[in-house]
Amino acid sequence: MGIVVNLKDDAKKPSSIDSLSLLIKEDLKDVNKIIVTRMASKIDLIPKLAGHIVAAGGKRIRPMLTLSSAKLCGYKGDRHLALAACVEFIHTATLLHDDVVDTSILRRGESSANLLFGNQASVLVGDFLFSRAFQMMVEDGSLDVLRILSHASSVIAEGEVLQLTTVNNTETGENIYLEVIKSKTAQLFAAACEVGAVIAKRPAIEQRALETYGINLGITFQLVDDVLDYTAKQGNLGKTIGDDFREGKVSLPVILAFSRGTSEERQFWRRTLESLDQTDADLEYAIKLMSKHDALSDAIKRARHYGSIARDSLGIFDDNPIRSSLVGLIDFCIERAN
Amino acid sequence: MGIVVNLKDDAKKPSSIDSLSLLIKEDLKDVNKIIVTRMASKIDLIPKLAGHIVAAGGKRIRPMLTLSSAKLCGYKGDRHLALAACVEFIHTATLLHDDVVDTSILRRGESSANLLFGNQASVLVGDFLFSRAFQMMVEDGSLDVLRILSHASSVIAEGEVLQLTTVNNTETGENIYLEVIKSKTAQLFAAACEVGAVIAKRPAIEQRALETYGINLGITFQLVDDVLDYTAKQGNLGKTIGDDFREGKVSLPVILAFSRGTSEERQFWRRTLESLDQTDADLEYAIKLMSKHDALSDAIKRARHYGSIARDSLGIFDDNPIRSSLVGLIDFCIERAN
Repeated sequence: MGIVVNLKDDAKKPSSIDSLSLLIKEDLKDVNKIIVTRMASKIDLIPKLAGHIVAAGGKRIRPMLTLSSAKLCGYKGDRHLALAACVEFIHTATLLHDDVVDTSILRRGESSANLLFGNQASVLVGDFLFSRAFQMMVEDGSLDVLRILSHASSVIAEGEVLQLTTVNNTETGENIYLEVIKSKTAQLFAAACEVGAVIAKRPAIEQRALETYGINLGITFQLVDDVLDYTAKQGNLGKTIGDDFREGKVSLPVILAFSRGTSEERQFWRRTLESLDQTDADLEYAIKLMSKHDALSDAIKRARHYGSIARDSLGIFDDNPIRSSLVGLIDFCIERAN
Repeated sequence: MGIVVNLKDDAKKPSSIDSLSLLIKEDLKDVNKIIVTRMASKIDLIPKLAGHIVAAGGKRIRPMLTLSSAKLCGYKGDRHLALAACVEFIHTATLLHDDVVDTSILRRGESSANLLFGNQASVLVGDFLFSRAFQMMVEDGSLDVLRILSHASSVIAEGEVLQLTTVNNTETGENIYLEVIKSKTAQLFAAACEVGAVIAKRPAIEQRALETYGINLGITFQLVDDVLDYTAKQGNLGKTIGDDFREGKVSLPVILAFSRGTSEERQFWRRTLESLDQTDADLEYAIKLMSKHDALSDAIKRARHYGSIARDSLGIFDDNPIRSSLVGLIDFCIERAN
């Protein structure tokens, strides 16, 4: 794109997801085994399609949150392993359902699992993973865990529906945007953390602290993710730059550039995001406008704000390597933008 | 179509869903209230879309099964009401997800909720109802109920995926077809019945008997439904005659006509159902072939077979109006074909 957005305002620290991964390395291996075992089905297409998305499946941040929260709370058993797999199944189900496209979108671009297997298979395999997650929670036997994750699932669905109503709508405000990312992304981060505290049978204050950590980490993560959609170097993101723009998604960088823009600029946003009338040069111009109005760097500032809340929520726990690594995870989420 | 298929082989009895509805009339009203209350969400689109499908939602056979099974087992509390609503939510979620279409299908014909609201909304509102059902089960607090319905949900998803692999495949055998309808339809009938016995805390033999009733009633229901797709009078069915044919679904009438047909006839089935190369006259000819080979009447004979098993499974219960009405429900399912 030829546009450099400098978002750093403090000294470079090393990426901090690795120290956490290292601390829970053995647990993570076990979770991966459970994931493979429990996505099995006599219907071949299920492990085939689910495996496609799980294998591609990134950093496993959500199951890591369950594992490390349990560890931070001094949990000694092995229930956290299957429950971390449940969390990943719920996440994978939502990814598969996100892949479902309307014909209008198919006309412009396509998404991967869907492209390979079709809308219907994506929906049904998502349903299978979702049901399987609930079966595994029932096997675990805790109604508290079931309550937390069934609540999270319904909030996620509400958030995704709310997001539908903001697509192609440049009048979406920052409050609605926040509500969307809190529901669709941060709620599962929070639930993943909370589950760790619940099985360790820790007092409510620790459960609430980890919930607060999770929700704010999730908001941070999604804010940065939405910035990366305009700034990431191809290959680092696992998706194509400009996807949100092409789909007419109204994320915070757009909201800030729109509200700080001139009336001609607003006309540009309406044409490109509402009418989806876009030329090749429009994405570059969109980024130029965002840069002009500090929309990308200020979105990262917002992310730092939520990151600070996440950091403070861990204050009640004794300082130990797990706590430090959870703090490091906040930095990792923010530094992805650099 | 001008083709009359006479499927009756015993004397006409009155439609028997009414006697059951009447016996559980007050409970059904309560269930409907719970359905409306619990599909509420601050996101307007959710009750709007869910209401659209729930309002259109037919005879409420599945929640009726939970209500009447509980009553047959002498249950006196009110847990059956919310659980019957859960069963209907799970059913509605699967209907919404069935509505999701691939572009290839969109080119030919379209389905209703999807047409009005789009693929993504159908998926997400389905997810919401599904999650809400689990939240309500958690509120009920029985791990046994959660086990039965989470298992049913995952079997349903497997059945739907299996069905995907049979579409446009004229070599699908009767055993695979049976596996599909047992999973995608009958499993929820069985679970709906079983839940009634579980909350009444009845001995395992009654739970198993009601499960057997449900699974066989479900098979009966779906077999007849698949026949109706070729024989129903428009308006009675709530869908367009020939939908299965146009989509290339391989249901029992097709399987029988195919396996009993000549090689030219098999060529016809391959052209119309595999290649989906269809002319206006093809549906009529398909029905003619089914008639020639007794495919429709024999599919009903198969339905009667499963209906008999359902009937016998109720033998361990004392004779009373609920039991008679559950027997009547089997007759109702079969008589729909007349």
